[in-house]
Amino acid sequence: MTKKAVFYHAGCPVCVEAEQSIAHALDHARYDVEVVHLGERKDRIKDAETAGVKSVPALVLDGLPFHINFGAALEALK
Amino acid sequence: MTKKAVFYHAGCPVCVEAEQSIAHALDHARYDVEVVHLGERKDRIKDAETAGVKSVPALVLDGLPFHINFGAALEALK
Repeated sequence: MTKKAVFYHAGCPVCVEAEQSIAHALDHARYDVEVVHLGERKDRIKDAETAGVKSVPALVLDGLPFHINFGAALEALK
Repeated sequence: MTKKAVFYHAGCPVCVEAEQSIAHALDHARYDVEVVHLGERKDRIKDAETAGVKSVPALVLDGLPFHINFGAALEALK
């Protein structure tokens, strides 16, 4: 059974680099990886916040938030 | 051919969580993942610095540094 991974970003260069490296490097046989652009999907900001995401890019893996480098604060996307 | 991934940590709780989640979630068929404890391997701090690592936990993927959450500054490990 695959586990859930959600990669939150905002289209920034730091975000794109993290997506192309880390999100793509995950084992897609074990993880169902969803990529969410919070600039375009403001309705998903609440989900990200609930998972503990403070900034993007961030990866929520099995419900745990991991902030990867720093692109933008979640507050700046509202 | 597998690519190189190096996960640098210092044994801190934030590091352990990131290792057990992100380092383990990488596709080991495509990435040769090395885990380096910089507290025990001070001789590897220079490698981490050269790759652009500023704090741990960090993952260097294809030569690019990704800082994951924040455990400790590299400077504090010297």
